[in-house]
Amino acid sequence: MNATYSNRRRFLKAATLVAAGGPWLARFASTARADDTGRKLGFALCGLGSLSTHQLAPALLKTSRCRLAGIITGHPDKAEKWKAQYNIPDKSIYNYDTMEQMADNPDIDVVYVVTPNALHAEHTLKAAKAGKHVLCEKPMETSIERCQLMIDACNAAHRLLAIGYRSRFDPNTQECIRLAREKVFGQIKVIEAGFGFRIGDPNQWRLKHDLAGGGALMDVGIYALQATRYLSGEEPISVTSLETKTDPVKFKEVDESITWQLKFPSGIIANCSTTYIANGIDFYTAYAEQGNFGLNPAYNYEGNRGARSDGRPFDFPPTDQFAAEMDDFAQCIQQNKPSIVSGEEGLRDLRIITAIYESIRTGKAQDLA
Amino acid sequence: MNATYSNRRRFLKAATLVAAGGPWLARFASTARADDTGRKLGFALCGLGSLSTHQLAPALLKTSRCRLAGIITGHPDKAEKWKAQYNIPDKSIYNYDTMEQMADNPDIDVVYVVTPNALHAEHTLKAAKAGKHVLCEKPMETSIERCQLMIDACNAAHRLLAIGYRSRFDPNTQECIRLAREKVFGQIKVIEAGFGFRIGDPNQWRLKHDLAGGGALMDVGIYALQATRYLSGEEPISVTSLETKTDPVKFKEVDESITWQLKFPSGIIANCSTTYIANGIDFYTAYAEQGNFGLNPAYNYEGNRGARSDGRPFDFPPTDQFAAEMDDFAQCIQQNKPSIVSGEEGLRDLRIITAIYESIRTGKAQDLA
Repeated sequence: MNATYSNRRRFLKAATLVAAGGPWLARFASTARADDTGRKLGFALCGLGSLSTHQLAPALLKTSRCRLAGIITGHPDKAEKWKAQYNIPDKSIYNYDTMEQMADNPDIDVVYVVTPNALHAEHTLKAAKAGKHVLCEKPMETSIERCQLMIDACNAAHRLLAIGYRSRFDPNTQECIRLAREKVFGQIKVIEAGFGFRIGDPNQWRLKHDLAGGGALMDVGIYALQATRYLSGEEPISVTSLETKTDPVKFKEVDESITWQLKFPSGIIANCSTTYIANGIDFYTAYAEQGNFGLNPAYNYEGNRGARSDGRPFDFPPTDQFAAEMDDFAQCIQQNKPSIVSGEEGLRDLRIITAIYESIRTGKAQDLA
Repeated sequence: MNATYSNRRRFLKAATLVAAGGPWLARFASTARADDTGRKLGFALCGLGSLSTHQLAPALLKTSRCRLAGIITGHPDKAEKWKAQYNIPDKSIYNYDTMEQMADNPDIDVVYVVTPNALHAEHTLKAAKAGKHVLCEKPMETSIERCQLMIDACNAAHRLLAIGYRSRFDPNTQECIRLAREKVFGQIKVIEAGFGFRIGDPNQWRLKHDLAGGGALMDVGIYALQATRYLSGEEPISVTSLETKTDPVKFKEVDESITWQLKFPSGIIANCSTTYIANGIDFYTAYAEQGNFGLNPAYNYEGNRGARSDGRPFDFPPTDQFAAEMDDFAQCIQQNKPSIVSGEEGLRDLRIITAIYESIRTGKAQDLA
C-alpha cells in the first residue's frame, strides 16, 4: 500500500466520525456502504471501440460487483446504438468534452478508459476530476511523465487507479505465479516470453505514433514484459534491445519487431520478443532449478494453456479475465485497498519500455537500478 | 565451394593424369577409389571421453561408409579397454604425442577430434600434418585465430575439415530448413531459440576457461546460434547480449547464462538464450508471415519433436545424427566436395560468439556486417 492511499484510509476513517466532507467524500462513503447493501458499482466505458464492444460490455454482464452504467464516446451514432442495446439512460451518456459533468451522476462509480494510449491521461484526469475511480487499459500511457500525472490526479481526487492487466486475473497465470513464488521447481533462472501478431488495417491508430506512443512493444510486448516481472517477482536492473523494421511504409511511425533482454537482481535473465508482423508468438516459460513451467498460448482472451515439466496438468475452468479484473477493482474500491495492477504498476512497465527504446536508440545496455 | 578446395579438385584432376604426387596425394587417390570398391573410411577417435564412448563408437557401427579404425588417447587404460572392445590393432592406437605417426597408417582416413575445445587446433593440426581428414567437434575452437589456423592447416594438407554440427543431419532440422527455404509459411520474421542444461560436476573441463574457452554459450548456446543461421539462411549483421551469474564460485571462469539477439539483413530478429543452470531450454521456433514452425526439444541426440502452426505432423524415423554426420563426411571425402558443416561454417559461429562476449563486455551492440 502506498503512503497516499494509506493516508486516504486514515482520512476516511476520521471523516466518518465527523459525518462531513466534500462531494467526492460523500460519494465514496456511499460506495463503501454499497458493499453491504449489495449495490453493484456503476462502470462507464470511455471509448467504444472493439475492446469495449466485444469484450468489456459482454464481460460486465458476467460480473458480480459491477454493471454497465454509462458510456463516454465521441460518436453520437455509437451512443444511440449502445443506449438501445444496454438500456443506458440519457443522463449517463457523455462525450469527451462533457465527461467532467459525471461529477453530478451518482450512478457512475468507475470510468474504464479504453481510448487510444496517448489519450489515457486526458481521460483519466477528467474522470478523477469528476470524482470517479479509474480503470485504464494498458499501456497506461505513452510516457513516464504522463503516467505520473494520472497517478497524481487520482491521488489528489482520493480515487483508485488500476491498469487493465487482465492476464493477472487468468487462473493459468495465477497458477504460474504461485509456482514461481512457492519455488515449486526451485529458483527461476531464465524466463522466455514473447507476444506478437500480424497487424491488419494500415490506417488504424495503433500505427500512429501520436496516438499509440509506440508499436508492437507498447501494444502487446508489454504483456511479455509484465510476465517477466510477475514471474520473477523482481524489478529488472538492466536492459538491452534490438529492433528491426522490414516494412518501413506500414511501420513508418512505430516499432515493428523488437527483442529485449532483462537482468534481474537475483540473476534471472529474461529474453523477450514482440512483433506486429507474425502470428503465433504468444508464450512464456520460466526455467527453474528443478524444472520449468509456463503458458502457450499465454495472453489470449481465452484458451490459454499451461504446461509443467513434471507433466502435471493445468486444469482451470474458463474464466472471463475482463470480468474478473473489473470485479477485483470493484472489490478494491469497496474494501478500500489498492489494486495489484495499480497505476504504480503501470508506471513501472512504462519506465522499462522507455529504457528499451533508449537501448535501441543508443545501442547500449540501459541501467534500470 | 571455397577457392582453395576448388583448386584442390583441379589439382587432383591433373594429378591423376601424371600418376604421381606426394604421400598425401597417393593416399587421397586411394581414398577416392575406395568409393568404387566399397571400402569404408577408417575413423580414428581422438579423445575417448563420454561422447566418444557413448555416442560416436556406437554410431560408427551404424554407418555405411565408415568404420572405427583407430584411437588417440592419453589414457593407456582406456586404450586397453577400447582395443579389446573394438578389436583395434596396436598399430592404430596413438597418444597425443605420437599421433603424427598416423602418416604411415593407411587404415586411418579421418581423425574425429573430440578433445576439450582449446585442444581442437593442436589435434587438428597434427592430424592434418599426418595427412588425415578432420572432423572436429563443436565449438570449432576457442578463438577466431585458432579456427583460422585449423582451416589453413587442412587446406595446406589438402584435407577436408568439417565440424560436428550433428543437428544438421537430424531429419527434423532438415525439414525445418526446407520449410524456411521454400517459404512454406512465407518469409520468416522472428526466430526464438534456446539451449541450456543444469551442469553437474564442478570440476569438469567445461568449467575451466583454459580448456573450454567459454561456458554455456560455447558449449550449448552454439546450437541455438547455428539454428538461427540455418533457419534464416543469412549471416547476422548486429548482436546485443546480456549475461548473468548466480553462482560465481562454480562459474568463476566461464559464463553461466547468456541471452543474445541477432539482427539479419532481411530484417529477421533472432532471440536466443543459453544457460548452465536450468534444464529444459531446448527449442527453436521460426515465426513467419503465414505461420510458424520449429522443434521442442530441438537439439537432443534423439527424440526431437517438430510442430507446425497448420497442425501437419513431423513424421521422421529415428536417426542417429552422429552416424549420419560421419557418413556425410565420408561421402564428401569420397566425392571430393566440401561439407555443409565446413571449417568456414565453424569459424562463422566463433566470430559471432566472440561478438556476443564483446557485447557483454562493452554493454554495446556489436556490428557484424
